[in-house]
Amino acid sequence: MNQVIFIIGVSGVGKSTVGNLLSKEMNILFFDGDDYHPKENIEKMKSGKPLNDEDRYEWLISLNELAKAQLEKGSCVIVCSALKENYRELLGQGIENHVKWVHLSGSFETIYNRMNARKDHFMPSELLKYQFDTLEIPQNAITINVELTPTEIVTKIRTELMDKSEFGLLGLGVMGKNLCRNLANNGFKISMFNRHVDGIEEHVAKDFKSEHEELSSVRPFDDLKEFVDSIQSPRKIMLMINAGKTVDTVINELLPFLSDGDIIIDGGNSNYNKTKERFEYLESKNIHFIGAGVSGGEEGALKGPSIMPGGNIEAYNMVHPFLETIAAKDENNLPCCSYIGPEGSGHFVKMVHNGIEYAEMQLLAEVFGILKAAGKNPDEIAVVIESWKETANSYLLGITIDILRKKENGDWLINKILDKAGNKGTGNWATVAAAELGAPSTLIASALFARYTSYYKEDRVDAQKTFRNSSTSNIGMSLDDLLNTYQFARIINHYQGFNLINQASTNYGWDLNLSDIARIWTAGCIIKSDLMTELAEVLKESTTILKSEKIIQQIKILKPSANKIVSQCITQEIPIPCLSESINFFNSFTTANSSANLIQAQRDFFGAHTYRRIDDPSGEFHHTKWNLNS
Amino acid sequence: MNQVIFIIGVSGVGKSTVGNLLSKEMNILFFDGDDYHPKENIEKMKSGKPLNDEDRYEWLISLNELAKAQLEKGSCVIVCSALKENYRELLGQGIENHVKWVHLSGSFETIYNRMNARKDHFMPSELLKYQFDTLEIPQNAITINVELTPTEIVTKIRTELMDKSEFGLLGLGVMGKNLCRNLANNGFKISMFNRHVDGIEEHVAKDFKSEHEELSSVRPFDDLKEFVDSIQSPRKIMLMINAGKTVDTVINELLPFLSDGDIIIDGGNSNYNKTKERFEYLESKNIHFIGAGVSGGEEGALKGPSIMPGGNIEAYNMVHPFLETIAAKDENNLPCCSYIGPEGSGHFVKMVHNGIEYAEMQLLAEVFGILKAAGKNPDEIAVVIESWKETANSYLLGITIDILRKKENGDWLINKILDKAGNKGTGNWATVAAAELGAPSTLIASALFARYTSYYKEDRVDAQKTFRNSSTSNIGMSLDDLLNTYQFARIINHYQGFNLINQASTNYGWDLNLSDIARIWTAGCIIKSDLMTELAEVLKESTTILKSEKIIQQIKILKPSANKIVSQCITQEIPIPCLSESINFFNSFTTANSSANLIQAQRDFFGAHTYRRIDDPSGEFHHTKWNLNS
Repeated sequence: MNQVIFIIGVSGVGKSTVGNLLSKEMNILFFDGDDYHPKENIEKMKSGKPLNDEDRYEWLISLNELAKAQLEKGSCVIVCSALKENYRELLGQGIENHVKWVHLSGSFETIYNRMNARKDHFMPSELLKYQFDTLEIPQNAITINVELTPTEIVTKIRTELMDKSEFGLLGLGVMGKNLCRNLANNGFKISMFNRHVDGIEEHVAKDFKSEHEELSSVRPFDDLKEFVDSIQSPRKIMLMINAGKTVDTVINELLPFLSDGDIIIDGGNSNYNKTKERFEYLESKNIHFIGAGVSGGEEGALKGPSIMPGGNIEAYNMVHPFLETIAAKDENNLPCCSYIGPEGSGHFVKMVHNGIEYAEMQLLAEVFGILKAAGKNPDEIAVVIESWKETANSYLLGITIDILRKKENGDWLINKILDKAGNKGTGNWATVAAAELGAPSTLIASALFARYTSYYKEDRVDAQKTFRNSSTSNIGMSLDDLLNTYQFARIINHYQGFNLINQASTNYGWDLNLSDIARIWTAGCIIKSDLMTELAEVLKESTTILKSEKIIQQIKILKPSANKIVSQCITQEIPIPCLSESINFFNSFTTANSSANLIQAQRDFFGAHTYRRIDDPSGEFHHTKWNLNS
Repeated sequence: MNQVIFIIGVSGVGKSTVGNLLSKEMNILFFDGDDYHPKENIEKMKSGKPLNDEDRYEWLISLNELAKAQLEKGSCVIVCSALKENYRELLGQGIENHVKWVHLSGSFETIYNRMNARKDHFMPSELLKYQFDTLEIPQNAITINVELTPTEIVTKIRTELMDKSEFGLLGLGVMGKNLCRNLANNGFKISMFNRHVDGIEEHVAKDFKSEHEELSSVRPFDDLKEFVDSIQSPRKIMLMINAGKTVDTVINELLPFLSDGDIIIDGGNSNYNKTKERFEYLESKNIHFIGAGVSGGEEGALKGPSIMPGGNIEAYNMVHPFLETIAAKDENNLPCCSYIGPEGSGHFVKMVHNGIEYAEMQLLAEVFGILKAAGKNPDEIAVVIESWKETANSYLLGITIDILRKKENGDWLINKILDKAGNKGTGNWATVAAAELGAPSTLIASALFARYTSYYKEDRVDAQKTFRNSSTSNIGMSLDDLLNTYQFARIINHYQGFNLINQASTNYGWDLNLSDIARIWTAGCIIKSDLMTELAEVLKESTTILKSEKIIQQIKILKPSANKIVSQCITQEIPIPCLSESINFFNSFTTANSSANLIQAQRDFFGAHTYRRIDDPSGEFHHTKWNLNS
């Protein structure tokens, strides 16, 4: 991959000398940034006036254009002081993945003495001091001390740049492997690591490399120190390992080999509270930590997942070229990866993503159950669901059609699968978070508990014998009504999911961008859908989708169908916990005066918990001695 | 209150001397236990044969009878070596609240030397050694070192017994105050403490004492050290303070004043995980900790609550005379307090009690909402609900009738109460526990989320305007069907609650007795009901009430009504999350072959999570490459 190496630092640090030498050793072109000042700047400088940021703008843009043009042909070295972060942003604009920063650094005394030892230079100490004051130390650069000789410096740069990997990936399970291929396919130079376990996990990285041509320049490791040492600093290491204690173990194993400013990315489904703890722990060790949700399954990991990184923005800025490049692209070709917010917010958002996913899957399962009860076979059900693509398309809808059609020895495979649905924690955590944050995420909870109930297989078999007389009679219903019911429930599910995120954002002060979160879920991830694309727009206007005129109109059309289908299923004894809950939540949510006043009265009766009154706008709490005159 | 003071200890420790002196100083009768041996024992001892436990049985029983008879007349002192715990149990049988143990204790050397210094006694060292080996040191006794003079010993006993309280209660909120009155009404000598906060909480304990005659002999404190010092050791101190960090703060404030073997009881609604942590923390400090759920509200605390204590059984045995005496009594006059199990199990069970309570309250609120929608006013609704007492009586049903009838200035008070239902944590924790333990406690979750939704008052008012056309038309329904629906949902709620307890019992190895838990919920607590009384029997046979023939028959009668009412409410857009969920859970639970196979197929499709097959009894996991031939 072609690269532009920017050599930066204060005046007198030796940028030109090092740049020239490097260009010769690497056999690539050398450019001195100062040669590209526009006429006006040169005249201004000649007249002794200092340049301001406005003057610099045009110049930096022209250097950026130079870099872009050169990249078409090959690699090059450009020297330029680039003291401020926003100068560097302009220089690297649009070519973030191809830019390497080398920061030549030294103490004020060293550089002052060196400069004034040269015959043809004289720099007043005020001017150098001004440069030091202006310098915003780059975090994402190879930093080299100028007390080394130019030759030593160039050797060091070459080792860092040429021999070392830009990115490390640790943990070669299904997801880790596919992310490695994705990174390599995008031209990144990476190292990959998998632990060695005698007889169980041996030469995993090496063997994996040999299986795929695109991994030919990837460096495989099963020695942790060698893996860490193979990565350019500041190191970017992504963990793709099981959530839980393993993450802490691996972090503690890594720590002795890391240096200040290195970045660990946890790409697993970690609990957001744990991510916050780890963030703080690693902060105390001067290591950056990014908790990044990654969704898209096997296929997404390979072709472009949706990525939800949380942590501090400075650390994110150092890894975004990698993450945003490998991420899926939305309909406007923007990456489905964007900075979520501080602490564990990335993993929180991923957790809610999975919660929404639980409910979306359960809704499809309920539709499947209804159509089965109506006497249809899997192929017939697939035909019905396929016809819904026009109005209700989604990734999950699509794979459901494939699943229903899959046959094995002439029979549908679905009929052979045991009806116990597993779970790996995120649906559980989403329900816990909803309970703790006071957000009524009833569809996520229903979907979770439906999976739990599925585990009572033996009890279910017994209970059917005990309680059900015969097979239920065939249910007759309008397929349009069923589609409307499904769509209605999906809107409620998405309302509740985004409401939960919004509640967390408020509670924890995360300041999350709901619309952008919906946008990065429009491609790459498991819950991508036409509805999500619509919601990315809707959420630009309001944090609650139930206030959008478009959604309101849809609900008004869909709701009567939902009433019909759900009451029919209740009568026919078909289990539909999620569909049913969507209606009950909506009916509660649209009841201005609910019967919760009775609950509050009961609480005051037995526990003196007090109540507020509708005729007392002060909001004060009242207590009644209820049972005295009763 | 009359007392029997047993002075116990190994031979030669000076029991008779001390007992005689004490009886004179206190002006009460003295009995030497040895005088009450039956003839056979005396002969056996004369013949030089040692007594065995069988020989002792009759003798101990006669001493117990002596004690009982004396108690009718006044207090007394009885001396008796009573070296083993089961001897002491026999001695105290049926008079646990009136027995005080004084253990005279000294080292082997001290006693050996003292005995052989007496002219008329000689005890071979083997015999004394045998006594020391036999001695099971009593934990619930006033222990006094015999190196003091008899007069000093008697003074110490008197101080401990006469001047000190038997029980301390810390925290005089609504519940704490009523528990103090309950303890005092039962004749216990107690100390009570409330902190001093300038200008806010001043002289709380003192003022409270002056308000109630029954508290005349209670000792009030606002100085913690004085409070602790006023209690007999081992001290029994019950905390009635807000759950949360306050509990840790108070424990740490108490610790410097406590001695080894003292007992703290946390009677608040603490989280069971915290109770486990505190149990372990205090164990490391040699302090016993009992986490005890207390239910019954204000009235229960005064007249007899239901108490659910967890911790170690030894500590419970020291406090049960207090707790079981103040507890409510069931229909067989047994106390509604019984040892639940280890660690935080008492608070876990209380948490589920509250979860069941949440759902029971929500079900009544839903019934109220349905009858309101049917056009009935609160008095008319009260008439309907009152007629249900015959088949569905419960404490909550009863107070609901009172609430509905309460008027204020000619209007029903219920109509003035704001419909935002608060919560204090236990419903939330119960939902979290259900999610974490994998138990489908859907009614508790629905009830919790219904309260959360009630908090969206402003959104609800807006949404009603946006989404609802006009007032819903009056709903016509059979009141019998409604009662059946309510009863059906209550059975499901109780099934799920006990299932959650059973799941925790299995997971944590607590070995809980579900029937006994139901029994202590038949009186004193908020969820006492005729159904609970029935379940205490049902749960003797099975850990799941849905396997009881009686319950099965009830469900078969009730379910058709529930189908009717719930589908009607859905059609009429009346929110009934809990009623509806009871049906959906039951329909899921009675579906032998559910559509969870589709969910498992989807999980395998996008995440390679694998599935099991109905045609592979090995239970092995299978994976399909789903999208290759689709």
